[in-house]
Amino acid sequence: MDLRELETPCLVLDSTKLARNLGRMRGHLSELGVALRPHVKTAKSIEVAQLALAGGPAAITVSTLKEAEQFFAHGITDILYAVGITPNKLDHVADLRRRGADVAIILDNVESAQRVAAHGAAQGMRYPVLIEIDSDGHRSGVKPESPALIEIGRVLHESGATELRGVMTHAGDSYNCDTVAKIRAMARQERDAVVRCAQRLAAAGLPCPVVSVGSTPTATYADDLTGVTEVRAGVYMFFDLVMAGISVCTVDDIALSVLATVLGHQADKGWIITDAGWMAMSRDRGTAGQKVDQGYGVVCDVAGHPVDGLIMVAANQEHGIIACRDGGALDLARYPVGTPLRILPNHACATGAQHDRYHVVAGGTAVEAVWPRFSGW
Amino acid sequence: MDLRELETPCLVLDSTKLARNLGRMRGHLSELGVALRPHVKTAKSIEVAQLALAGGPAAITVSTLKEAEQFFAHGITDILYAVGITPNKLDHVADLRRRGADVAIILDNVESAQRVAAHGAAQGMRYPVLIEIDSDGHRSGVKPESPALIEIGRVLHESGATELRGVMTHAGDSYNCDTVAKIRAMARQERDAVVRCAQRLAAAGLPCPVVSVGSTPTATYADDLTGVTEVRAGVYMFFDLVMAGISVCTVDDIALSVLATVLGHQADKGWIITDAGWMAMSRDRGTAGQKVDQGYGVVCDVAGHPVDGLIMVAANQEHGIIACRDGGALDLARYPVGTPLRILPNHACATGAQHDRYHVVAGGTAVEAVWPRFSGW
Repeated sequence: MDLRELETPCLVLDSTKLARNLGRMRGHLSELGVALRPHVKTAKSIEVAQLALAGGPAAITVSTLKEAEQFFAHGITDILYAVGITPNKLDHVADLRRRGADVAIILDNVESAQRVAAHGAAQGMRYPVLIEIDSDGHRSGVKPESPALIEIGRVLHESGATELRGVMTHAGDSYNCDTVAKIRAMARQERDAVVRCAQRLAAAGLPCPVVSVGSTPTATYADDLTGVTEVRAGVYMFFDLVMAGISVCTVDDIALSVLATVLGHQADKGWIITDAGWMAMSRDRGTAGQKVDQGYGVVCDVAGHPVDGLIMVAANQEHGIIACRDGGALDLARYPVGTPLRILPNHACATGAQHDRYHVVAGGTAVEAVWPRFSGW
Repeated sequence: MDLRELETPCLVLDSTKLARNLGRMRGHLSELGVALRPHVKTAKSIEVAQLALAGGPAAITVSTLKEAEQFFAHGITDILYAVGITPNKLDHVADLRRRGADVAIILDNVESAQRVAAHGAAQGMRYPVLIEIDSDGHRSGVKPESPALIEIGRVLHESGATELRGVMTHAGDSYNCDTVAKIRAMARQERDAVVRCAQRLAAAGLPCPVVSVGSTPTATYADDLTGVTEVRAGVYMFFDLVMAGISVCTVDDIALSVLATVLGHQADKGWIITDAGWMAMSRDRGTAGQKVDQGYGVVCDVAGHPVDGLIMVAANQEHGIIACRDGGALDLARYPVGTPLRILPNHACATGAQHDRYHVVAGGTAVEAVWPRFSGW
């Protein structure tokens, strides 16, 4: 089967680029002497996760309990659920743990720690818990100097129904850094925040075996992770235009694309119209605030090479509108009805989520495999 | 089962509001003497489609062949696939037709008409085809006065492998009209475009039995559809904040919401953090360009009533950040960890697509039913 024979839109994954991206991150973190706990929220695919783990310890990060279920069903047991736990998910976590999945959870407030401890006591469970640290003001987490850190640590350590497993943070604000120097500074800030928390917990006589950081930009450019035990990252597997826009990868590293077909034109406007709209690309416009706005994506030929400075300038649900980036003239005759095109996404997590499978190519246009992916909660 | 017992995030559909929305559109179009061909791209649910059809003729509009397959599997045979056909989908259309689905297709250029005719001839098929008309410069379609209309019509009528079934248009630009007067004017423009095309085809001796228009705003405010035979609309079933923002519905009409749970706070910023991020809401920011920017959605209590002027101001993949719309002070103690909230979406089509089922309530918080919905192609 060749890409040209597929019904469109559909998702294409270049396994050659995937392997290169996986190897580069593994090599970099290995040099820094820190473990990688891949975040499977981007790929949501057992085949991709297995390549990311590369035969090493089968430890992953998940963003939903659905991911925990799916990867546990494929034999992965060491799972960090890296979204602050809510009370209505504890029965599910208990059930997973009872079945043999070592699911660790996170939280950032005393109230949640108490509820988790109470639930564990009622269920005869001992939940491993990491305290979430706010290293960049981006979303959740306790501030590194907050008294709450020690209060939460004490609740977790003193309850027989919880195990204080450590601290974790996500420097999500690294996505907004526009130079390598800023990303590197953010990596230090991310590291310093959790290392400081580990020191404070130790000084209070509390354990902190795991010191976890993670975001693809900081993981890529970190140059010293002393005191950190593990790094979590997910987007690095596929990369995307947002990452390329902040120099975390090149456009050529992007392993994910959406295959589309030309369905018509509006010659007076210089528009090519395809069957890949926002439903296929997602509504993510992550490059809108970057130096180069890539619209809904960079347009490539069927072999995956960017063409003619084309981007997807607008999207309806099942229609994509393609035009020259600079509004320049375009020879529409080069793109007749039926032409296959591949669109590189702004955000791999968002675009992947719109699809239920990967059509895997190895650099060319031959479909070597079809890998399922799942969605939802 | 009550909404408070569900794992979050998940999708909630209020069947009371749904029924009201469906009845209002049916009544309005019935008064105008025109048929309704519901667009199932928003709901992607057989239960919702059956309510929308209300025992009338089982004729639907779809945006993907997956929708055609799913609804045909439930006995609906009169199907308009309302996205310009590409050559790589014709085998699938032929297969559906062979199995008994009366799938009609659309196109807007001579090249496509010739390819469809050639495919039909090779397959021993006769494809029903509507010509897509551009009534508002929004995306695809031939201009009402274009010579291409008659050229395409002749190709389709003269080939034994195609049946010229009529003309259709979608005034998508009505989503950008900010007053009822402008929407009403757009409805006239939409009608005039296809009625003019039907007249031109007739003058050329070509048939045009179907004259089809459709968009929720124009369908809602059209006051005279003389010459039109059918109206297509989909968002009217659920409505959303984009529609409320242009006075096509009220916020109280919105039948769809995402159930979320509070997982923490950032007191210094006045933030409530929930487990419904952009994965649950979609990345659609359709109200960003409207008079009132609703962020990622309007926040309601578990019973569906908007609370405290709260909106979802930001989103990570699985985290939603909620704050006061006006940046004002918020009593976080009213929203402790575990509090269930419902978020009204910007765009029902995009938010629905992130989920695989509806939790159906009838105005309250009791879950009366769970209806599956599908996604993809």
